[in-house]
Amino acid sequence: MIRPLHPDDRAAWQALYQGYQGFYGFHDRPQEFYDRAFARLISGQAGDFHGLVYDDGGLLGLVHYVFHPNLWRDEGVCYLQDLFTSQAARGKGVGRALIQSVYDAADAAGVPTVYWLTAEDNYAGRMLYDRVGRKSPFIRYNRPV
Amino acid sequence: MIRPLHPDDRAAWQALYQGYQGFYGFHDRPQEFYDRAFARLISGQAGDFHGLVYDDGGLLGLVHYVFHPNLWRDEGVCYLQDLFTSQAARGKGVGRALIQSVYDAADAAGVPTVYWLTAEDNYAGRMLYDRVGRKSPFIRYNRPV
Amino acid sequence: MIRPLHPDDRAAWQALYQGYQGFYGFHDRPQEFYDRAFARLISGQAGDFHGLVYDDGGLLGLVHYVFHPNLWRDEGVCYLQDLFTSQAARGKGVGRALIQSVYDAADAAGVPTVYWLTAEDNYAGRMLYDRVGRKSPFIRYNRPV
Amino acid sequence: MIRPLHPDDRAAWQALYQGYQGFYGFHDRPQEFYDRAFARLISGQAGDFHGLVYDDGGLLGLVHYVFHPNLWRDEGVCYLQDLFTSQAARGKGVGRALIQSVYDAADAAGVPTVYWLTAEDNYAGRMLYDRVGRKSPFIRYNRPV
Repeated sequence: MIRPLHPDDRAAWQALYQGYQGFYGFHDRPQEFYDRAFARLISGQAGDFHGLVYDDGGLLGLVHYVFHPNLWRDEGVCYLQDLFTSQAARGKGVGRALIQSVYDAADAAGVPTVYWLTAEDNYAGRMLYDRVGRKSPFIRYNRPV
Repeated sequence: MIRPLHPDDRAAWQALYQGYQGFYGFHDRPQEFYDRAFARLISGQAGDFHGLVYDDGGLLGLVHYVFHPNLWRDEGVCYLQDLFTSQAARGKGVGRALIQSVYDAADAAGVPTVYWLTAEDNYAGRMLYDRVGRKSPFIRYNRPV
Repeated sequence: MIRPLHPDDRAAWQALYQGYQGFYGFHDRPQEFYDRAFARLISGQAGDFHGLVYDDGGLLGLVHYVFHPNLWRDEGVCYLQDLFTSQAARGKGVGRALIQSVYDAADAAGVPTVYWLTAEDNYAGRMLYDRVGRKSPFIRYNRPV
Repeated sequence: MIRPLHPDDRAAWQALYQGYQGFYGFHDRPQEFYDRAFARLISGQAGDFHGLVYDDGGLLGLVHYVFHPNLWRDEGVCYLQDLFTSQAARGKGVGRALIQSVYDAADAAGVPTVYWLTAEDNYAGRMLYDRVGRKSPFIRYNRPV
């Protein structure tokens, strides 16, 4: 089942989120990084991130999303920032179900537009995303650091 | 000079923004689309979009940006959604100056991360973006409509 | 073992090559297409294509390559046009071994440059190609048909 | 007018081809590189490269192409390897005319398929290529060097 993140999920959530951060090469996030993210996800503060987990006895996956303004759409948009499934649960529909849950949450909020960004060479992810989403021609530029 | 959008800019701003929307193929936005965007840009409402214009006697360009939460960064990020320069003002540094103004505004807000999305085949734009920004490997997926 | 294609491979080769053509959406190639390709592959004609197969009792994979002129390199280049592994043999190193065999054949011919093209969304292929090759920034344009 | 490269073009051709090589970062090609390429282009040897130039009193542009085998097409394909227009002649249709001349030469040879590769960020080139060609989803991988 998919349910909102709960304070009791602290340890199991971090194990998953470390896997996700590691996928993007961030293997050495300090503990405060995880403390702060978790606190925000369960704060219930308006305008901040929401977290959902796939709970099958243990946590098999997570998804984090936020609503933010968009000038082209009064109702704003939903940004799905983080999605991760434990290695052991790959290929079982966990990721697909988590994305669908964000779609449902966005509909419930009256914000039909949902988007996410992924690395061009995230092949395993894109195999899923091509089925549940549509690749756009848009690419991201960043201010140089 | 670059300055914040002002209520008196209504007509000149719309001429530019229609050019921008047309660039992305949206030639038939209803008047309410422009009314609503302009109202939001000058509302000064916390959390909503900001607009800057390049004013050289007439308006030569515009940029719209917003700050929104990001789970990886407590201070959030700055999303530069719209950038446009009038045809007559191309190649004169207007776009570059407008991007720099957003960098400055983001610094002033304590939000150093600025990003934008652009179509992969927006060649003229990317000639500029490669000089003032860094292409990331991230591509955008959308929920199917 | 990897060995050159042999006239006795006719039927087993076609089963593989139909799988490859089908991957790119060509499900209805006429029989003459396969007849002609096979004839060329075993013709031994100078300048035409070579075929190698991975033979483990049955054929598990194939690779087709050709040497062609390149103005930047007097010795020319080696174009690996077709690579395919049977579904049953995926993940066992067959594709990797076939690519390596082309590298070896190219070295033996004094043509160190080997290249191939692949669809941007051939994720399974690219998982392998990123390990045994280097993605270039070059994309292909075609004359309109 | 567009005409085949001629031995008398030696110096003017090299000026153009150095511009092209420089565009791709090869500023220090030895003289032998140019000697050898020119010799091949005017050799008339079967199977090797052809060169065309845009001659308006002086040389404004060049194109080099070759026919090579393709296993999917008995008649082979035409590879347009090099295209360059002098800075002074940009935006005047020289590149477009040179590509069209290759299309015509390919038709005359019974080889309708013409293709070329270009760097993803060759924006000026792609502005032209999107008008006279079709971007394919194919990307190039190279054997590591």
